[in-house]
Amino acid sequence: MLHQLMRWKRAAWRALTPEDRAAMANEAASVLTAMGAEQSAVFSMLGHKGDLMFVHFRRDLDGLNRAELALSRLPIWDYLEATTSYVSVVELGLYESTARIYRMFGERGLEPGSDAWDEALAEELARQRKAMEPRLYPAMPDHRYACFYPMDRRRGEEKNWYMVPFADRARMMHEHGMVGRKYQGIVRQIISGSVGLDDWEWGVTLFAGDPLQFKKLIYEMRFDEVSAVYAGFGQFYVGLRVTNEDLPRLLAEGELA
Amino acid sequence: MLHQLMRWKRAAWRALTPEDRAAMANEAASVLTAMGAEQSAVFSMLGHKGDLMFVHFRRDLDGLNRAELALSRLPIWDYLEATTSYVSVVELGLYESTARIYRMFGERGLEPGSDAWDEALAEELARQRKAMEPRLYPAMPDHRYACFYPMDRRRGEEKNWYMVPFADRARMMHEHGMVGRKYQGIVRQIISGSVGLDDWEWGVTLFAGDPLQFKKLIYEMRFDEVSAVYAGFGQFYVGLRVTNEDLPRLLAEGELA
Amino acid sequence: MLHQLMRWKRAAWRALTPEDRAAMANEAASVLTAMGAEQSAVFSMLGHKGDLMFVHFRRDLDGLNRAELALSRLPIWDYLEATTSYVSVVELGLYESTARIYRMFGERGLEPGSDAWDEALAEELARQRKAMEPRLYPAMPDHRYACFYPMDRRRGEEKNWYMVPFADRARMMHEHGMVGRKYQGIVRQIISGSVGLDDWEWGVTLFAGDPLQFKKLIYEMRFDEVSAVYAGFGQFYVGLRVTNEDLPRLLAEGELA
Amino acid sequence: MLHQLMRWKRAAWRALTPEDRAAMANEAASVLTAMGAEQSAVFSMLGHKGDLMFVHFRRDLDGLNRAELALSRLPIWDYLEATTSYVSVVELGLYESTARIYRMFGERGLEPGSDAWDEALAEELARQRKAMEPRLYPAMPDHRYACFYPMDRRRGEEKNWYMVPFADRARMMHEHGMVGRKYQGIVRQIISGSVGLDDWEWGVTLFAGDPLQFKKLIYEMRFDEVSAVYAGFGQFYVGLRVTNEDLPRLLAEGELA
Amino acid sequence: MLHQLMRWKRAAWRALTPEDRAAMANEAASVLTAMGAEQSAVFSMLGHKGDLMFVHFRRDLDGLNRAELALSRLPIWDYLEATTSYVSVVELGLYESTARIYRMFGERGLEPGSDAWDEALAEELARQRKAMEPRLYPAMPDHRYACFYPMDRRRGEEKNWYMVPFADRARMMHEHGMVGRKYQGIVRQIISGSVGLDDWEWGVTLFAGDPLQFKKLIYEMRFDEVSAVYAGFGQFYVGLRVTNEDLPRLLAEGELA
Repeated sequence: MLHQLMRWKRAAWRALTPEDRAAMANEAASVLTAMGAEQSAVFSMLGHKGDLMFVHFRRDLDGLNRAELALSRLPIWDYLEATTSYVSVVELGLYESTARIYRMFGERGLEPGSDAWDEALAEELARQRKAMEPRLYPAMPDHRYACFYPMDRRRGEEKNWYMVPFADRARMMHEHGMVGRKYQGIVRQIISGSVGLDDWEWGVTLFAGDPLQFKKLIYEMRFDEVSAVYAGFGQFYVGLRVTNEDLPRLLAEGELA
Repeated sequence: MLHQLMRWKRAAWRALTPEDRAAMANEAASVLTAMGAEQSAVFSMLGHKGDLMFVHFRRDLDGLNRAELALSRLPIWDYLEATTSYVSVVELGLYESTARIYRMFGERGLEPGSDAWDEALAEELARQRKAMEPRLYPAMPDHRYACFYPMDRRRGEEKNWYMVPFADRARMMHEHGMVGRKYQGIVRQIISGSVGLDDWEWGVTLFAGDPLQFKKLIYEMRFDEVSAVYAGFGQFYVGLRVTNEDLPRLLAEGELA
Repeated sequence: MLHQLMRWKRAAWRALTPEDRAAMANEAASVLTAMGAEQSAVFSMLGHKGDLMFVHFRRDLDGLNRAELALSRLPIWDYLEATTSYVSVVELGLYESTARIYRMFGERGLEPGSDAWDEALAEELARQRKAMEPRLYPAMPDHRYACFYPMDRRRGEEKNWYMVPFADRARMMHEHGMVGRKYQGIVRQIISGSVGLDDWEWGVTLFAGDPLQFKKLIYEMRFDEVSAVYAGFGQFYVGLRVTNEDLPRLLAEGELA
Repeated sequence: MLHQLMRWKRAAWRALTPEDRAAMANEAASVLTAMGAEQSAVFSMLGHKGDLMFVHFRRDLDGLNRAELALSRLPIWDYLEATTSYVSVVELGLYESTARIYRMFGERGLEPGSDAWDEALAEELARQRKAMEPRLYPAMPDHRYACFYPMDRRRGEEKNWYMVPFADRARMMHEHGMVGRKYQGIVRQIISGSVGLDDWEWGVTLFAGDPLQFKKLIYEMRFDEVSAVYAGFGQFYVGLRVTNEDLPRLLAEGELA
Repeated sequence: MLHQLMRWKRAAWRALTPEDRAAMANEAASVLTAMGAEQSAVFSMLGHKGDLMFVHFRRDLDGLNRAELALSRLPIWDYLEATTSYVSVVELGLYESTARIYRMFGERGLEPGSDAWDEALAEELARQRKAMEPRLYPAMPDHRYACFYPMDRRRGEEKNWYMVPFADRARMMHEHGMVGRKYQGIVRQIISGSVGLDDWEWGVTLFAGDPLQFKKLIYEMRFDEVSAVYAGFGQFYVGLRVTNEDLPRLLAEGELA
């Protein structure tokens, strides 16, 4: 995934003739509409941290780089400046399935670290990856509101997530997941990992039809032990989805229906 | 709520003819005056963090986005740059009423988590929301001075608000509220939540006829346990309300009566 | 008080004709000289954090806002950019007098919180405010060097100033004051509070005829318990006073006698 | 080593004629291609932190300074701005060899600190330096993906790497190295030290044919005691290698095959 | 001392004719060469934090302010922008001599705080100041490489330098000095204090003929208790001395022999 936060250079943009603005906006809208099929979306953001957010899902880094370069070649790009961005890879929480595998293999009498164990594990992971393909390569949700923020697990002197035993981490993640599950159908949560790819360990992208649910969900989760004690949060970005129909006018005139 | 802090690009503004400045200022003033009916206000700020602050109350994020886009379409906007902003939702402290509900339901013999409890709770919350509507959707106070700052509850390794039991948090919030109550009629306090919407957990907007009362109130509160131990503060912004009458001249000439 | 740190946009300034520069510099110098009577001063700063510092004392926020707007209307202001600023209110340390009042009232047999106590307290504070008027509304010191920095009292997990009992805070402030007193006649110290007005809790402005005394005083104080354990410091700014005579040439030509 | 992160000033670049762009791009590409022989490489980066990353290996600081000045003399450099950079020196982990030397010399009956010891040590270090020359002056790896980040060893109040006894540090580094070794042939890791040269203590540059391996390796390592407890991380940068063939077109047109 | 880090605005510089560039460069070089006699030097820096570093030694703040203003009046200054700077005063470590004085006076039977003690102390300090004059007002070292960084002594909740008894601080400083002494003749170390003058407590400027010695020295020192536990470090800057001969060409053409 690539999130791009962009700010209008409005004075320069408005120095153009309406015809030039319309032409550039239409060209951009048509490229972005075509990109939509590859799972890209545009949002009109609240506040000064960015006027527009572009979110891209692609199969690999090459696809993201191509998307980024394609947008940067648009004439309209001269009138936008990047305020921030985020590079990450959709991932699935593996605490529950890892625990299940250990239990299952244990019942089968497999010895951790043995060849039989390793072989069974490789097989099982391949099976899961296949089963989870649709969740690993999701389609762009079409809710009206989106919220994005990056986060870390803390490594404090006393409270250090990476020194907590697996079973405790699995328990905390399970409790955390229970809260998330209460919002199923209300808030769509896409978790992406960015260790080694960007400045935080995870990116969280939420989609909902009611933006107050972002606040409700995250506030409720803040009391989960895993968040209260071990979560570090970056900046929060919130905005409204811009449909293909609304895009040319928003770009050209700064107006959203 | 949306707070927008803007800085003048004075050199460019003054390169315009006085007529152009006056025309742009008048157009902006009339849009802002009309917005005033929807609960927007303008402040002349002290210091380098912004020359003007726009504060908007709206019913929903769409209304805030519309306000933001409407202002950004003004020609005068080319001569302003955003230094910061804040997105939040007015909220009411629920510690006291939650505690009261638990007591009340307990006296009625309701079991927490039972169907009867949940039903009574939903009923009670709906009743309260209705009763509190005027406080949830406040009119813009018209005091001469305003102060804005964002804040967090701390999640330190030892002192972590989100790990404190409810009863202790309720007690600390009650003591805190007692200090606030001493300033009733002197400082109007609007608390808004921004978990999941912006970078801090809350925004505090204060209004008063005497700006020294901001200092007095906040200093006194700093000794409250909830502030002393658990509050993290962002930047502070202070300014003077610009009335509809003063607005055109301030915008055109940088003069405030 | 308002401190304004400004940086020259030299390339643009020097693109002007010498005549235009001289005219703008003279106009600014005459406005600033007139402002001097209202207690404003200009400093030529060391380093990249600002070329000029303007310090304004006024009776209220309105006066500061007027000063700021008046300067911003000067043509020369298009050639300066604000790097930082600070808003604060001159205040007097009250630990000693508060302790004295408690002792005095106790000796008189007054009960804290009683009506008699409150009445006597109001009377006493009014009396003190009158007596201290010259220190609350100081004239601008005319030493050659000034040093400014903002500071906080720390609220750490273990070491939290706002959780320390009054008597201990009073003792530490007394010891701290003893060090300050050693520099009477050498370094003039103006303490201003900025809780609720700006990003730190206090601003400290020092004036001296020998700038090494700033270093000596602050280094000596750093070993005071109240500084060593409880002080958090912002950035430090140091500069030379620009007299009315030197001002036009410094502004026009960047030269200081 | 010098890492340079650069961002395009696209509006200015595109204001040039296609012929001028092509000429400047070709000149830059030919200088960079020639530099490649001296071990320089170009990467197309993901996200807003930089569009291009230049990585230079040279024998000394003078060579790096020459490379930096040579690039800055290119006409195309007027259309790029530096967002960050990193100066460091390739180094080899010496924990294992130091421990081995102590053991070896001990077996030989040498007394630490004696003249015999010092002489043997100087001899041994000279021998190792010679043997390790190829690893100290590596050729530029030619994998398709690179990841760069700076890091520190933490000096917390409780957990302070520089107060940990040598034997414990050696043990932790050994465990850490074991994880790195699992990725041999998958991720090429070049560790460079920057104490006294840049803002972090080390720079880590990873090269791989599959960028997910960066995430996998670093996430796995995060549970190593040395990383979990003692590592502080800076920003992460990830990008795709630009071959000599692709360079002119990427520079001129912003397109990568 | 004043350190000035400056970055070229290359696009604007190169828009000038070669004749104008040469004229401005020559004028600047001749001013800087003349300043060299007053102990100023120029360095070509590695990385994005600055292209040039100017280091000035002067007798007082007025001299530094004059140097800064003189450079800022150069036409070439319009093509440079300050990225950072540092103001500090050369100082000598007094832990050893203070301890020696106490011992010496004790042996003489003087009582600390007595008039005899104070008189002897004033006499002794005057004597030392005279003896140390050459070290307090050093000539600019002429090594090829320089390294600059600011630093603090930490005031953590547990580990607070300013709460450590004098004897322990003196012992740690002594051990630290022993490491520094090993590099005598290899790395020239100039320590300057900046408490009350700039944002850190000290500035460290190192000069050497081999830049790897900066890394070696600072890494070795990092294990000293005083550094490991009590040192906080700012940014590090490293560069090559530009001789009077090389200066015009570096300024005009960006080339260093």
